[in-house]
Amino acid sequence: MHYLDNSATTAVSPAAAQKAMKLMTCCFGNPSSLHALGIRAEHELQAARETVAGTIGADSREIIFTSGGTEANNLAVFGASEAKRRTCKRVVVSSVEHSSVREAAQKLSDEGWEVVQIPPATDGSVRPADVAAAVTDHTALVSVMLVNNETGVVNPVEEIFEAVHLKNRQTICHTDAVQAFGKLDFGVKRLGADLLTVSAHKVHAPKGCGALFVRKGVRILPRQIGGEQERRLRGGTEPLPAVAAFGVACGEFQTEANLATVRSLNAYAREKLLSIDGVVCNSPENALPYVLNISAGRVRSETMLHFLEERGVYVSSGSACAKGKPSYVLRAMGFEQKRADSALRVSFSKNNTTKDVDALVEGIALGLQTLAYR
Amino acid sequence: MHYLDNSATTAVSPAAAQKAMKLMTCCFGNPSSLHALGIRAEHELQAARETVAGTIGADSREIIFTSGGTEANNLAVFGASEAKRRTCKRVVVSSVEHSSVREAAQKLSDEGWEVVQIPPATDGSVRPADVAAAVTDHTALVSVMLVNNETGVVNPVEEIFEAVHLKNRQTICHTDAVQAFGKLDFGVKRLGADLLTVSAHKVHAPKGCGALFVRKGVRILPRQIGGEQERRLRGGTEPLPAVAAFGVACGEFQTEANLATVRSLNAYAREKLLSIDGVVCNSPENALPYVLNISAGRVRSETMLHFLEERGVYVSSGSACAKGKPSYVLRAMGFEQKRADSALRVSFSKNNTTKDVDALVEGIALGLQTLAYR
Repeated sequence: MHYLDNSATTAVSPAAAQKAMKLMTCCFGNPSSLHALGIRAEHELQAARETVAGTIGADSREIIFTSGGTEANNLAVFGASEAKRRTCKRVVVSSVEHSSVREAAQKLSDEGWEVVQIPPATDGSVRPADVAAAVTDHTALVSVMLVNNETGVVNPVEEIFEAVHLKNRQTICHTDAVQAFGKLDFGVKRLGADLLTVSAHKVHAPKGCGALFVRKGVRILPRQIGGEQERRLRGGTEPLPAVAAFGVACGEFQTEANLATVRSLNAYAREKLLSIDGVVCNSPENALPYVLNISAGRVRSETMLHFLEERGVYVSSGSACAKGKPSYVLRAMGFEQKRADSALRVSFSKNNTTKDVDALVEGIALGLQTLAYR
Repeated sequence: MHYLDNSATTAVSPAAAQKAMKLMTCCFGNPSSLHALGIRAEHELQAARETVAGTIGADSREIIFTSGGTEANNLAVFGASEAKRRTCKRVVVSSVEHSSVREAAQKLSDEGWEVVQIPPATDGSVRPADVAAAVTDHTALVSVMLVNNETGVVNPVEEIFEAVHLKNRQTICHTDAVQAFGKLDFGVKRLGADLLTVSAHKVHAPKGCGALFVRKGVRILPRQIGGEQERRLRGGTEPLPAVAAFGVACGEFQTEANLATVRSLNAYAREKLLSIDGVVCNSPENALPYVLNISAGRVRSETMLHFLEERGVYVSSGSACAKGKPSYVLRAMGFEQKRADSALRVSFSKNNTTKDVDALVEGIALGLQTLAYR
C-alpha cells in the first residue's frame, strides 16, 4: 500500500494506539470521578493537555479538548461571536477556509451578522492588507487558516493578525492550524493567535479528538454544554482514550526532521510528476511540502483516483470532507473549471518513502495513457 | 478492585477495545475518502450504525453518531427547538434531567424561550399528567429521561409521550436513554420517541462516542457543522475507533440475562446495606437495579467515598459530571439537605459479583463506626 492521503487522516502511531488501549481497558476511569480511578484518568488527561500545550508554546490551561478539528473550529467561530454579540456585528474569514469555518460563518450570516469573505491571491495565500481592510470597530472575529488543506499554501498569519490588531485590538484572531500542526514549527505567541485549532487524527493519533487553544484573557462562550469539564468551555466526558493517545503522538513530534524528509520527498515527486506531459502543479513552490496538489491532463479526479487505488496508491481528489465535490479552493485561486476537476491531492507523512512516490508517478503516467480524454 | 461506579463509566470490553485498535492502526481510513481505505472505514461505520440501530429497534438511517451523550442531548434540545423556532416558543423538561439537557434548556430560557421544568413525584418519577399539562400548541419539545442517572428511577416515558402527543401531535418527544441503554429492554417505536440519546462509554465501549436516534420524518437542525457526514446533521470526521467499538459492545448486549444478574446483586446489596444502622435507601423499590442510591448516616458523601476507595471500593457521590456538587435530583425528590449530602451512588455492571457487594457493605459498616458525626 502506498498511502499518500495523510491530509485526510493518518495511521495511529503504535505508541499512541497502545496508550488508547490502556485508557480503554485498564485506566478506564471517568476524569470527573472523585475516587482514585477517576484521579488517575484526570492525571492522564492533564499529561496530554501539557504535551499538546507544549507543542504550540501554550499553557496547559489554555487548551480545551474537543471531539476534533470541526468542533474546535465551530467553537472558535460561534464561541467568539456569541461572546461579542452585544458590541459587534462583523466576522471576517478567508474564502478558502475548511467547511467547519466556512459553514459556521455562513450560519452567522443567516443570523444577521455581516460576514466578509476574503479571497486569496492567485498563489492561494491570503493577504494581510486584504484582511485588515475588512476589519472595523465592530469586528468580533477574524479566522484565517495557517495551512490550506487542499494546496498546502502557508498563509502569513502572523502578519495578518498583526495588521488586524493594529486596526482593532479587540478583534479575536483565530487560525485553523489543523494542517500545520506537527508539520510546521510555530508558536501561538509569535503567531499572535487568540484561538487556534488542532486535530489529533492528522498527526498519527485517533479520530475523535482535537483541541482549541484559547489565549488566557480571551473570552469565548461554550457551545457544547452540560457538566463542569474543560473549565466549563466544553461539557461532556472527555474522549480520554483518544486524548491520551493524542498526547503520546504529540510527544513523538520531530517537526524539523520530518519536514526535511517530506520536503525532499515532495521535491522528488514534483520533479518526476512535472516531467510527465499533461501534469501541472496547483500548489505554489513555497507551499508546505506535506501537500502537493496537481492536475493530471483532463482525466477527472475521481477517475484517476480509482485508477491509482487499483495499483495500491491512495490519494484524494481534494478535501475528504467534501466527498468529491468540486474544489472551491482551486476555483478561488482562479484555476479554470477543467483544471480544478482533474485535481489530485497528494499528501505525505513522515512514513512515506520514494517508493510511494515512484508508484504514484508510474500510476499517473499509465493513467494518462489509458484514461486520457475519457 | 471493587468497581461499583458503572453509571459514571465502564471498562471497555476486550472485543470492543480490539476493534478500536484495528480501526486505529490497520483500517485507519477516513470514511469520507473515496478510495478503498475510505470505503472500508465507511463499511465499519455502517456496520456499527446497523448494530446500534438494531438494539433500539431503529433503522440505521435514523442513527446520528456524535461524540457522546452530552452532544446528542444538546443536539436534541437545540436542534429540535431551532427547527421549530418560527412556530413555537415553549420547551418542557423534567427538573431531574442530566445537566446536558438542563443547561441546554436554561440556555433556551436565556434566549427567550418559555422553559417549563416538571418536578418529579416523591418517588423520583415524572408523572405523565404533569408533563402533558405543560404542553401547549406552541411547544416545540418535551425531554424526559428514561432512567435517572442518580437513582435509577424509571420514568413512564411511553405514557408521557402518549399524553404529550394527545395534547400536541407536533411536539417533538426526546428521551435521554443513556442510563437505560443496554440495561433495560426498550424500543423506540413502543416508547413513541422522536429523538433518543445513547452513549457508548456507559456500555463497555470507549469514551468519545454516542448517538442520537432521529425518527424518520422528524426534522431537527444540526449543531456541529462543516462537512457532509451523518446526513449533514453532524459535521466532522466520525470518531471511528470509538464508533466501531461501540458497535461491537452493542453486539454483546445480553440485556435480559444481565438485568437478572444485576437485579439479584442489587437485592443482595439492599438487604445487607439496610441492615446497617443509619443506612437508608434513596432509590425506590422499582428503580432500575443497575443503580442503588443510599445515604449512610450523617457522613458526608465525599468522606465516605474516600474511605471506601482506600479499601478498593469505588462508588460515587452522585453524577460524575457534577464533580461533587450537591444533588439537585435528590433535593427535587424532597429529601432533606443532610440526607442528600450523605448520598452514595452504587452502580453495577454485569461484571460485578457478590464479593464487590460484600466489600462495599463491610466498608460502609466500618466507615459508619469510624467516621460517624465527623
